[in-house]
Amino acid sequence: MAEQQKPLVGVIMGSSSDWDVMQHACAMLKQFGVPFEAQVISAHRMPDEMFTYAETARSRGLRAIIAGAGGAAHLPGMVAAKTVVPVLGVPVPSKYLRGEDSLLSIVQMPKGVPVSTFAIGEAGAANAALTAIAIIATTDDALAGQLEQFRQQQTAAAKAMTLPVNE
Amino acid sequence: MAEQQKPLVGVIMGSSSDWDVMQHACAMLKQFGVPFEAQVISAHRMPDEMFTYAETARSRGLRAIIAGAGGAAHLPGMVAAKTVVPVLGVPVPSKYLRGEDSLLSIVQMPKGVPVSTFAIGEAGAANAALTAIAIIATTDDALAGQLEQFRQQQTAAAKAMTLPVNE
Amino acid sequence: MAEQQKPLVGVIMGSSSDWDVMQHACAMLKQFGVPFEAQVISAHRMPDEMFTYAETARSRGLRAIIAGAGGAAHLPGMVAAKTVVPVLGVPVPSKYLRGEDSLLSIVQMPKGVPVSTFAIGEAGAANAALTAIAIIATTDDALAGQLEQFRQQQTAAAKAMTLPVNE
Amino acid sequence: MAEQQKPLVGVIMGSSSDWDVMQHACAMLKQFGVPFEAQVISAHRMPDEMFTYAETARSRGLRAIIAGAGGAAHLPGMVAAKTVVPVLGVPVPSKYLRGEDSLLSIVQMPKGVPVSTFAIGEAGAANAALTAIAIIATTDDALAGQLEQFRQQQTAAAKAMTLPVNE
Amino acid sequence: MAEQQKPLVGVIMGSSSDWDVMQHACAMLKQFGVPFEAQVISAHRMPDEMFTYAETARSRGLRAIIAGAGGAAHLPGMVAAKTVVPVLGVPVPSKYLRGEDSLLSIVQMPKGVPVSTFAIGEAGAANAALTAIAIIATTDDALAGQLEQFRQQQTAAAKAMTLPVNE
Amino acid sequence: MAEQQKPLVGVIMGSSSDWDVMQHACAMLKQFGVPFEAQVISAHRMPDEMFTYAETARSRGLRAIIAGAGGAAHLPGMVAAKTVVPVLGVPVPSKYLRGEDSLLSIVQMPKGVPVSTFAIGEAGAANAALTAIAIIATTDDALAGQLEQFRQQQTAAAKAMTLPVNE
Amino acid sequence: MAEQQKPLVGVIMGSSSDWDVMQHACAMLKQFGVPFEAQVISAHRMPDEMFTYAETARSRGLRAIIAGAGGAAHLPGMVAAKTVVPVLGVPVPSKYLRGEDSLLSIVQMPKGVPVSTFAIGEAGAANAALTAIAIIATTDDALAGQLEQFRQQQTAAAKAMTLPVNE
Amino acid sequence: MAEQQKPLVGVIMGSSSDWDVMQHACAMLKQFGVPFEAQVISAHRMPDEMFTYAETARSRGLRAIIAGAGGAAHLPGMVAAKTVVPVLGVPVPSKYLRGEDSLLSIVQMPKGVPVSTFAIGEAGAANAALTAIAIIATTDDALAGQLEQFRQQQTAAAKAMTLPVNE
Repeated sequence: MAEQQKPLVGVIMGSSSDWDVMQHACAMLKQFGVPFEAQVISAHRMPDEMFTYAETARSRGLRAIIAGAGGAAHLPGMVAAKTVVPVLGVPVPSKYLRGEDSLLSIVQMPKGVPVSTFAIGEAGAANAALTAIAIIATTDDALAGQLEQFRQQQTAAAKAMTLPVNE
Repeated sequence: MAEQQKPLVGVIMGSSSDWDVMQHACAMLKQFGVPFEAQVISAHRMPDEMFTYAETARSRGLRAIIAGAGGAAHLPGMVAAKTVVPVLGVPVPSKYLRGEDSLLSIVQMPKGVPVSTFAIGEAGAANAALTAIAIIATTDDALAGQLEQFRQQQTAAAKAMTLPVNE
Repeated sequence: MAEQQKPLVGVIMGSSSDWDVMQHACAMLKQFGVPFEAQVISAHRMPDEMFTYAETARSRGLRAIIAGAGGAAHLPGMVAAKTVVPVLGVPVPSKYLRGEDSLLSIVQMPKGVPVSTFAIGEAGAANAALTAIAIIATTDDALAGQLEQFRQQQTAAAKAMTLPVNE
Repeated sequence: MAEQQKPLVGVIMGSSSDWDVMQHACAMLKQFGVPFEAQVISAHRMPDEMFTYAETARSRGLRAIIAGAGGAAHLPGMVAAKTVVPVLGVPVPSKYLRGEDSLLSIVQMPKGVPVSTFAIGEAGAANAALTAIAIIATTDDALAGQLEQFRQQQTAAAKAMTLPVNE
Repeated sequence: MAEQQKPLVGVIMGSSSDWDVMQHACAMLKQFGVPFEAQVISAHRMPDEMFTYAETARSRGLRAIIAGAGGAAHLPGMVAAKTVVPVLGVPVPSKYLRGEDSLLSIVQMPKGVPVSTFAIGEAGAANAALTAIAIIATTDDALAGQLEQFRQQQTAAAKAMTLPVNE
Repeated sequence: MAEQQKPLVGVIMGSSSDWDVMQHACAMLKQFGVPFEAQVISAHRMPDEMFTYAETARSRGLRAIIAGAGGAAHLPGMVAAKTVVPVLGVPVPSKYLRGEDSLLSIVQMPKGVPVSTFAIGEAGAANAALTAIAIIATTDDALAGQLEQFRQQQTAAAKAMTLPVNE
Repeated sequence: MAEQQKPLVGVIMGSSSDWDVMQHACAMLKQFGVPFEAQVISAHRMPDEMFTYAETARSRGLRAIIAGAGGAAHLPGMVAAKTVVPVLGVPVPSKYLRGEDSLLSIVQMPKGVPVSTFAIGEAGAANAALTAIAIIATTDDALAGQLEQFRQQQTAAAKAMTLPVNE
Repeated sequence: MAEQQKPLVGVIMGSSSDWDVMQHACAMLKQFGVPFEAQVISAHRMPDEMFTYAETARSRGLRAIIAGAGGAAHLPGMVAAKTVVPVLGVPVPSKYLRGEDSLLSIVQMPKGVPVSTFAIGEAGAANAALTAIAIIATTDDALAGQLEQFRQQQTAAAKAMTLPVNE
């Protein structure tokens, strides 16, 4: 999949301060060689750009949009309101409520406009990327093979873990 | 203020099912004779109408927008993103989380795009209306007088409350 | 898509008592004509069947698995541990904690094994189905068209909502 | 608005230890050139001063009162009980519950005595100030213009944000 | 203690709708023959009456004040701000948050102005009364004897409880 | 009250690690010259000592018992089960849940066995002491006078607070 | 195991009102033929009986104690403080907080005095009983066989569940 | 019990990063001389190994399994699904939700498949070990004696605690 340049996944976030979390999505996509684009799109400060981004997502070839946001996290849900491309929401931890607000703002979408939601923080960002990859892999056996290999390596790494008590 | 027909306050909500709660805002505005408009505008199902509504709010003469929504309640915050008219958010109770999700989705707005948030449910709807009235009353002595009279009546009603133990 | 008989989506749940919620997923799939299978698979009472189900999901042609569970809701996460097919988790409301436990048990998956999580209850079930459809639609223009039509009808229905105050 | 000296906004807080948060309200008012006053008024340690402050607020020309408090945060609600000037409440984060107590103590006001509530902490303080400005701007086109300019600058700043992955 | 008419305990509540809960305080005081007074005093609708009540409490002979309130429950804390008579706060369950807001608004008082807080609802009201009685009993051996007798009866009643499985 | 040596207040806590919080109770009692005793009594590790302590409290002259505990904080409630002396419970912050567990374990006592509960941490410890003092002061005018003076000083200190914006 | 009459498991609860929940423990023990005793022992109203019960548990032959309690649920932890017999705690749902308080009061025991905690309500009561049985079964192959059979029947029942969509 | 080499208790955890918490279980088992084994078994990354571990637990002689996991903590519940050996679950604190998610994911097991749950973090790990020991001690008087001695030492240590105020 390396030679393909046109992004298949869009990674967006409300602020450059979300990068600490959202870089884990980009790193995973890079690891799998899935072409992606990443940029700051703020639901509240760039609402028109957000709508344009969502409206053009499918025609630009995106198969999934990963959207990270914190607090009153409206970005994933509002993007989902303007596209039928699967939207994967990542709750970014907030300063005082540690992402409980972000999680509820993203996951509790009303019937009819879905957002796939993941764990608060880094794990959620990485898993959103893995889901984007899995979505593409539903019709791409090579990528599915890569995913299975990733899982096997992950299993091997877990098996190799030792505890001080056994040393 | 009774003869004025142009609405000064807009009352919007994500669904007609929010009416049970949001009617308490309308009833209060009616009681004070403040002209208002009320309609369903769904953030997720009518995003373009929502933006148009917000963008034209000030030029149409609105001095405050009361927005009620439940769950991942994006309506107040997204309207606020498109207008400088004060937005007053009412958390509508949700089926399973009883409005805790609605409250956090509305109140935890990022710096720069404010939403005034009120109590979950009926009390919040009525208080959003009283705040809209208070905003207009900052430069309208007659309306301020009405507000003070309302408070006095409220005090009188509380004073008149009796308890079975005293009867 | 009506003539296709082989299921593209698997809908599973921990108990037949979850049907009240999960039927909203099936109804949505049926509405879109997407072939699906539905059955009870309990993570805790049918662990071996769960693993077999997950292991064979991709080879049987499933493009997405919708898994509903309540309380210590392990079904979505354990299925995800055994397949690279996208797993969509629906938190079923629990008796005393109303699904807060179900939500956290499903969404807080560790890095490497993703579960897409949706709202607690009926809305989440319907949205999981819409996401399964959207996943298939990433490479199926006709289905994407159906999704867009669904959205337009939904918008039209919202626009047609009236409030008693306007009547 | 620079030459006007009489305060239009009052900023009060329960303790000088709230300044870390509440300075963000003052900084915003200063940035817009809106005259304001700021002082410590403790609901529990200065109840009489609090009542006097609230009672004289309108006659002293205040158009909004921003009140920050933490824990059992009674200041905003009790000020609101004694004035019809809009009261904007800022939940100051508490040591152990991080402001969840402050938020609920401020936002859950009973019907009849409203407090506009904002996000916990710095963002809430800044947004309360922006709301005070927006309230004044409802009848002040110049100030409304300033607000719109502020929003445009904010949008421009968000658009200019870059991510390490793109560099 | 029966012949004494001057109230030793004041029972106040924010609204007559709190009576369902607060009657359990009055019933307990009556059961012990401790003279008390009960009335509605709303923190937000009768702030001046509240302050007068608190300021005169000690000189009128009150040894404890039981204050019940729900939601942003400011009554106990504001009464405590104006008297050194012990204030016993009862969180009245709220409609949507079931008293979690009431509890935090009452218990999280800042250093220097204490409120003794009890369980949400009926049990809390009864226990506030028992505490008021216990406070008087610290210097009243007869009343202390009554309390000990109450405890013994309570123990006897618990011991007498049978379970269907044993019948 | 300085010359009186027999303790009027007992301060107990589950572990010496609670001292950081509970010293604020002792400091306040010392400041008022109220004789007290302080010691570690663990509900779970010293149950018999706990019962003896509670059973003898009244005959030893204690007018109030301040009990601090964290996590599954059983000390205040179990002491209350064995004495009619007022028990004042202080929720000590726990490592992971920051005292939410301590608060609920202390405050949610069943009808018939009351514990007066205070804020989580230092403020709660100090306020429990102020309540113990207020209980004694219900029949001690000199101590009541001290309490009123304490309040006045507190008010004066709050009034003297200045903010950087005013300097 | 049917002929053995001496109880191996003690089932206790704070009030006969807990029977609705705790009967599920007794029913399970009965189903397995494990001899048990059941009675009301209130931590707060029968503290001495509670201690005697716990102190004699091992010598009376009990292999496990199942203790159900709600609210500030001190029964399981205080019994555990007086015995080394395994204590299994069942959080009984409380009126307003639905067992969240019961759960935290039971599970958050300090290091050194363990209580095994189970789910809130009926499921937790049944599972506490199954754990008591499993404890006895660690050295009783026949009972272990019964447990395995129970699991198989449970699996069979789950497998036999059908969904309306398949009928 | 020192000479016995075959492990009676299995200690497992989802990742070597859980060791900080879970070492407190191992330390306690070592202190009592109870033979144990400890290893990393990840529910999500080593599902087959997990099942094998659980299925063979009883035949390998394990009398209890201590399983620690964080976040969507599925390890204890899934092990319990495959064995009738008592499973003792330890909620490992998670990064953002501090173990609230871990606790609910472990404790809220459905009827029929029990997991004994302990406090979040170190205390829970130690107490799970003490419970494993207590389970073995139900039929091992020597070990029961050790447990009682441990309790006495613990009591002695608590009694020996002094407070700075007394020095």
